[in-house]
Amino acid sequence: MSTNQTASDNISFLKHLRAVRAFRPGTVPEAALKDILDVARWSGSASNRQPWELVVVQDREMLQALVNGEGSIKHVGSAAMAIILVMAGDPDRFPHETYDEGRLSERIMLAAAAHGLGSCIGWFKGNAPSEVKEMLGIPADRLVRTVISIGYPDEEARRAQPKRPQPRKPIAEIVHRERFA
Amino acid sequence: MSTNQTASDNISFLKHLRAVRAFRPGTVPEAALKDILDVARWSGSASNRQPWELVVVQDREMLQALVNGEGSIKHVGSAAMAIILVMAGDPDRFPHETYDEGRLSERIMLAAAAHGLGSCIGWFKGNAPSEVKEMLGIPADRLVRTVISIGYPDEEARRAQPKRPQPRKPIAEIVHRERFA
Repeated sequence: MSTNQTASDNISFLKHLRAVRAFRPGTVPEAALKDILDVARWSGSASNRQPWELVVVQDREMLQALVNGEGSIKHVGSAAMAIILVMAGDPDRFPHETYDEGRLSERIMLAAAAHGLGSCIGWFKGNAPSEVKEMLGIPADRLVRTVISIGYPDEEARRAQPKRPQPRKPIAEIVHRERFA
Repeated sequence: MSTNQTASDNISFLKHLRAVRAFRPGTVPEAALKDILDVARWSGSASNRQPWELVVVQDREMLQALVNGEGSIKHVGSAAMAIILVMAGDPDRFPHETYDEGRLSERIMLAAAAHGLGSCIGWFKGNAPSEVKEMLGIPADRLVRTVISIGYPDEEARRAQPKRPQPRKPIAEIVHRERFA
């Protein structure tokens, strides 16, 4: 860790991550992608099983095709790239894999943000997981659900969005000291 | 974000997070705890539901009592504090809550690391979730499973640990470009 990096810099970096759903054209530099994948690789997981593989899609036709399925995945269409998380799919470890998938996703978003890139999580629903496995050559027994869109934020589209009155609950509503009640 | 913070600083910060299971004595400064809770508060979640509450335990007797249950939770005993994640417990949203719980956990660990604090995830197993709910006054219908220990790393204990030959899988083993196969 470099010496010019302070606790408050890192806290600020963590606090300011927001999902980005609209992207401007422009590809992701290979150096940024390398960093994102390296941060993903170093993710912690239950018993250090690392129950994941990643499919990086940059082909525009494939990105468009991914949007056709069911799910909250519209943002993939304008993204420079998408990372599909392929979890091991052990039915006995469903909660562990799902939890680890969340940890991995958060890190990928943060690593993208480190490079000024926006990202958004989408979940494939209904028949989409099966269709995506077929399209990308992923074995049927894997757990495929999450796609993370990555690209440069379309700031104009972001500014045009209505602001939510309470983007997060206040601390007093979610934190308890020593006892819940 | 301050100007002296670079992409490589942030990538390095993200890459170097490791679980810390042994802590030296010393309490967590209130300012650090405030930052950790604020980073937690700003975590993203499915449909922005924020399906979580946190119980912060610093009472030494309670920390010791938490260790008595079943689960990978021994590290709680030497920690300065523990954060118990209390998820909403909606049975229809089990995968979403579990995934969001993973995202939240990763952020709490990173926020601790920003302050030079170590952390470790533990899961309560068997009867421990019910026992912990009883001990902390948490309603029975909530999903309680994760405890995150936080404290200053015991560097001596860490150096004494045997090094794992391959702490993470290589990129070539987990990343596919455009297609899985």
